[in-house]
Amino acid sequence: MAAPAKPLAVTLGEPAGIGPDITIAAWLRRRELDLPAFYLRGDEALIARRAKALGADIEIASVSPGETETAFADALPVVATGKHVTAEPGKPDASSAPAALASIREAVADVRAGQASAVVTNPIAKSVLYRAGFRHPGHTEFLAELAEADGRVPQPVMMLWSPRLAVVPVTIHVSLRDALTQLTSDLIVSTVRVVATELRSRFGIAQPRIAVSGLNPHAGEDGSLGHEEQTVIAPALKVLRNDGIDARGPLPADTMFHEAARSLYDCAVCMYHDQALIPIKTVAFDDAVNVTLGLPFIRTSPDHGTAFDIAGTGKANPASLIAALKLASRMAAANS
Amino acid sequence: MAAPAKPLAVTLGEPAGIGPDITIAAWLRRRELDLPAFYLRGDEALIARRAKALGADIEIASVSPGETETAFADALPVVATGKHVTAEPGKPDASSAPAALASIREAVADVRAGQASAVVTNPIAKSVLYRAGFRHPGHTEFLAELAEADGRVPQPVMMLWSPRLAVVPVTIHVSLRDALTQLTSDLIVSTVRVVATELRSRFGIAQPRIAVSGLNPHAGEDGSLGHEEQTVIAPALKVLRNDGIDARGPLPADTMFHEAARSLYDCAVCMYHDQALIPIKTVAFDDAVNVTLGLPFIRTSPDHGTAFDIAGTGKANPASLIAALKLASRMAAANS
Repeated sequence: MAAPAKPLAVTLGEPAGIGPDITIAAWLRRRELDLPAFYLRGDEALIARRAKALGADIEIASVSPGETETAFADALPVVATGKHVTAEPGKPDASSAPAALASIREAVADVRAGQASAVVTNPIAKSVLYRAGFRHPGHTEFLAELAEADGRVPQPVMMLWSPRLAVVPVTIHVSLRDALTQLTSDLIVSTVRVVATELRSRFGIAQPRIAVSGLNPHAGEDGSLGHEEQTVIAPALKVLRNDGIDARGPLPADTMFHEAARSLYDCAVCMYHDQALIPIKTVAFDDAVNVTLGLPFIRTSPDHGTAFDIAGTGKANPASLIAALKLASRMAAANS
Repeated sequence: MAAPAKPLAVTLGEPAGIGPDITIAAWLRRRELDLPAFYLRGDEALIARRAKALGADIEIASVSPGETETAFADALPVVATGKHVTAEPGKPDASSAPAALASIREAVADVRAGQASAVVTNPIAKSVLYRAGFRHPGHTEFLAELAEADGRVPQPVMMLWSPRLAVVPVTIHVSLRDALTQLTSDLIVSTVRVVATELRSRFGIAQPRIAVSGLNPHAGEDGSLGHEEQTVIAPALKVLRNDGIDARGPLPADTMFHEAARSLYDCAVCMYHDQALIPIKTVAFDDAVNVTLGLPFIRTSPDHGTAFDIAGTGKANPASLIAALKLASRMAAANS
């Protein structure tokens, strides 16, 4: 696997959260884990303060994206956003939202300008952003708006990826009741198309095998335990197979995720949040990566939140960010 | 753990399925695995034919339940139901239903008469039984009817158990849409009460810790992703805790099942089929055991079907039946 030509742009996330902590922790393990070069889009003074709080005696290099590669071996490269942070660990303040948003905007600008190969985002605190007037449903939708081209906003698709299992929920952050309403053949078709395209282009899988779950127990058991397999999912699969996509199903969700079953496909597309998230968090709790498919650039993210309660304490586990960095690098290499 | 005083009664299941195969395979491994003594309630001639088909040169002992213990070391004990089977492997016929039903009825009669310590049921084929006039929704409900006492039919509760995880779905074999309708505080309360009682009496856990899932993603995220956590599940938990039951939740289902989370509870009670079955089949696909709680006797079962396509071929894996035998023995010992 070739290393990407350009560095990874890591966003700050909520500055009072564990984003700075895990970024510092990941950089400290750069040699041991052979991590790809990355820079943090943020505030050098914040990182210096956080490193001190963590007892990490590190060099920080204030760089431009192009200087990352050279600086990375000896110092944590920071590309300034110009937004200074006053928030203390665990205590978001008025500086949090402008700093978090500027970091995302500028990291995306970097990758779209060809100065970075991918965006790796640290966790944000939606409630903090909402209080500051943020109007997007979440991190991913904001990224999709930043990716707008010719007046069209792309449809982002959330994948959770680990070396053992990759899953995509068709409906996501809605109640189970609303998921039943939102689930349509069109949504399944458009989601699986994005998955198939990106497994080829960004994961280097020539013939992606996609397992599609049923909605009901035992995938409806021929209609006796629910009809959506017959009326919604099977018609979508027919369209997809006519497109030449290897989409199998609808499969009983409970027997899709043991080790032998997982070896038969590259990604499981599931009908709702917990159907997808239960299995991957069961087998890959610490190192699952959140990947946004469907954007004109690569975006990965650790699969956890801001963890305000342990920010600045040294207790934050960088495993998921490390996995996100490695996957972004692998995707960039497959894409180049 | 003391061995149970009485043998286990194993039912025949669908005679054309893999029940006879896995019973023979389990008996062959009795010494290696130190299996508890059991007898098959069935037809000696069928077992002799199936053993021959499988190339297993075994002794079969036609016994009464009380003679099992002595016979078990050298021969597979069979207690005759008097129903003779003509069905060939993979081909259920008119002899299937009477033989399967007689075996269940007589095994239950044995355990209720104190001649057996538990019933371990082989898989039946509901469609075969329905064609023969069977009118119960399933195996478990039939057992509950056989357990009727004083005109009251007990509420059976399905648990899937493995050494790594035990789960109980509150709603079971209904569509996801119907599960949303069936889910009530009363059903959660009555289910968890049965679970708590039997974890104490039959699993020997003095202070059972029960984790209760939410219904919606992130357990509803304070109502923004669904209201059932607040209106249905939390009120049930309040009632249960007032009863002195250690019932925790509602917990986000996706983060309940990784190894560290599992170590914090004895059983997870989930709101619907796949929420419970996905995690256990992910971590214990081959050796999960189906246990029916709430009956006046112990009943365990392998967690798979009749597998008509491999009956008589020697390909059937006895792991789940073996786990069911061991668990029934452990439960009988705790109960005695």
